Amino acid sequence: MKRRVIIGVMGGKDMLSAQALVDAERLGEMIAEKGWILLNGGRDLGIMQASAKGAKNKGGLTIGILPDKGEFATSQYIDIPIYTGMGDARNVINVLSSDVVVACPGATGTISEVALAIMSRKEVILMGLDDRGLFADISKNNYVHYVNTPEEVVEKIEELLASR
Amino acid sequence: MKRRVIIGVMGGKDMLSAQALVDAERLGEMIAEKGWILLNGGRDLGIMQASAKGAKNKGGLTIGILPDKGEFATSQYIDIPIYTGMGDARNVINVLSSDVVVACPGATGTISEVALAIMSRKEVILMGLDDRGLFADISKNNYVHYVNTPEEVVEKIEELLASR
Amino acid sequence: MKRRVIIGVMGGKDMLSAQALVDAERLGEMIAEKGWILLNGGRDLGIMQASAKGAKNKGGLTIGILPDKGEFATSQYIDIPIYTGMGDARNVINVLSSDVVVACPGATGTISEVALAIMSRKEVILMGLDDRGLFADISKNNYVHYVNTPEEVVEKIEELLASR
Amino acid sequence: MKRRVIIGVMGGKDMLSAQALVDAERLGEMIAEKGWILLNGGRDLGIMQASAKGAKNKGGLTIGILPDKGEFATSQYIDIPIYTGMGDARNVINVLSSDVVVACPGATGTISEVALAIMSRKEVILMGLDDRGLFADISKNNYVHYVNTPEEVVEKIEELLASR
Repeated sequence: MKRRVIIGVMGGKDMLSAQALVDAERLGEMIAEKGWILLNGGRDLGIMQASAKGAKNKGGLTIGILPDKGEFATSQYIDIPIYTGMGDARNVINVLSSDVVVACPGATGTISEVALAIMSRKEVILMGLDDRGLFADISKNNYVHYVNTPEEVVEKIEELLASR
Repeated sequence: MKRRVIIGVMGGKDMLSAQALVDAERLGEMIAEKGWILLNGGRDLGIMQASAKGAKNKGGLTIGILPDKGEFATSQYIDIPIYTGMGDARNVINVLSSDVVVACPGATGTISEVALAIMSRKEVILMGLDDRGLFADISKNNYVHYVNTPEEVVEKIEELLASR
Repeated sequence: MKRRVIIGVMGGKDMLSAQALVDAERLGEMIAEKGWILLNGGRDLGIMQASAKGAKNKGGLTIGILPDKGEFATSQYIDIPIYTGMGDARNVINVLSSDVVVACPGATGTISEVALAIMSRKEVILMGLDDRGLFADISKNNYVHYVNTPEEVVEKIEELLASR
Repeated sequence: MKRRVIIGVMGGKDMLSAQALVDAERLGEMIAEKGWILLNGGRDLGIMQASAKGAKNKGGLTIGILPDKGEFATSQYIDIPIYTGMGDARNVINVLSSDVVVACPGATGTISEVALAIMSRKEVILMGLDDRGLFADISKNNYVHYVNTPEEVVEKIEELLASR
């Protein structure tokens, strides 16, 4: 059995531009079209909601790693909610369970996930997330890739998967 | 969108009778035939391996919540491995993410999961796991059900799902 | 530097006999008198509250490993609250951080901690906790000790520490 | 009972300048002199080792929140090791358990802790950690303070504690 690729899509839950949400939904669609599984934080907010909606638009499979025990609202676009009851500690699970991590615009949660991903030696693609070059410098350009569009994300993922 | 039911199957990783493994595989098959998702601890051992194999025999979908970061062997019958890197703390996630928890023969890990499930007010079905009536007494017969065969497990799950 | 011994005291948060609470407070006192650090779940309830009070009666040092982020009440007898925000997953930390685990009367939480302790190969002393011999059988009498009084607990701890 | 203040000191485990290590040790000393408890990641490396050594130089109390179950080396300057077995997820506990978080030079682990601290609405003092202004902007200058010396850290902590 060959396992399906899991792409983690991280990003903010509020304070996002319309473009960031459009891009996240389009990214979710493209992930589903490639036959990859989409994994995110599972809530009905921001990048989580948009990317899961995109994946379901195209019949994809979606997994949400929730911070709560089920007391918050789970996105209706999540097929498989994994409830951790561990708050922000679930960010670690997000990155460990993704073959490649995509970081969309967001704030501290997203930045913690980029940092945790590099620590776990996961490849991270920043799509329109401005980290001021911080992570590229820290990782000496290993693991960290900067792009602007969903198309570029998918191209980079394919390149990374091919090189493994 | 109506979410598919997730059935957690817990149980030991070694020191198991042949019957326990046969029953776990048959249970996995029946879970898949019902269209439910099977969730377990994801390793290639004991009840985890047998139940995931059963589900895949019948084309089911399987999720494994792993204790490690990917350094242990993951069962080849797991479609979606969720790596937690949290050791036994992942037992909490197993029970929180299952609609109903089935406990097969096992030792301390399985018992911790039954205990955690009752704490989280999840229904637990013990299939051939002898707890000497401990949990039935503690929970005053709420949440805890004792059965002997995969057929009885499925019957009980259907009863529990219908009553929600 | 020689590190001070840490004794974990687990037990229920409600539905306890007066004797269980008296014993827990006395156990806390005796742990402090021995110069050991007391570690428990940190809340202001049941065995947690009684054992921490006992330790402080005698000027001991107390550590609480809390399930919350600070939104629940922390026992006023806890010197050092460690907030995990991880719910029941913090039970794993309780046992991993204790040199010896003492389990007082309790319900599912306490039983999960006894199970997790044996899994982590920690010595566990059950003081008046009736597990119907379940854990002694599972661990083949390794790691599990049954006693009835705080005095017997302390005697057993000293024996275990001496044999390491 | 009034609880002693706990100051979390985060920072890298390797690739540090001599000055960063000198400053961390001096900071540990000053924390102990103020009567505050020092909390860090507990390992015998980098900022963890230096800050714990400083605190013990002056007879302070030190707590280490370890990522492992005891299989790694714990700093000899840690009085109370808390073993989590949860890898990087323990970073969440570090910040939740600190009254104020100080971030010294470090890499991804340290940055994840600054991010998690702001998410938990903890005050964070960056001592010589260059984040390119990222966190100040994200938090709109709430919670985030930039200083260069241990003396400035202590001054800022006193100011923050006084204003609560």
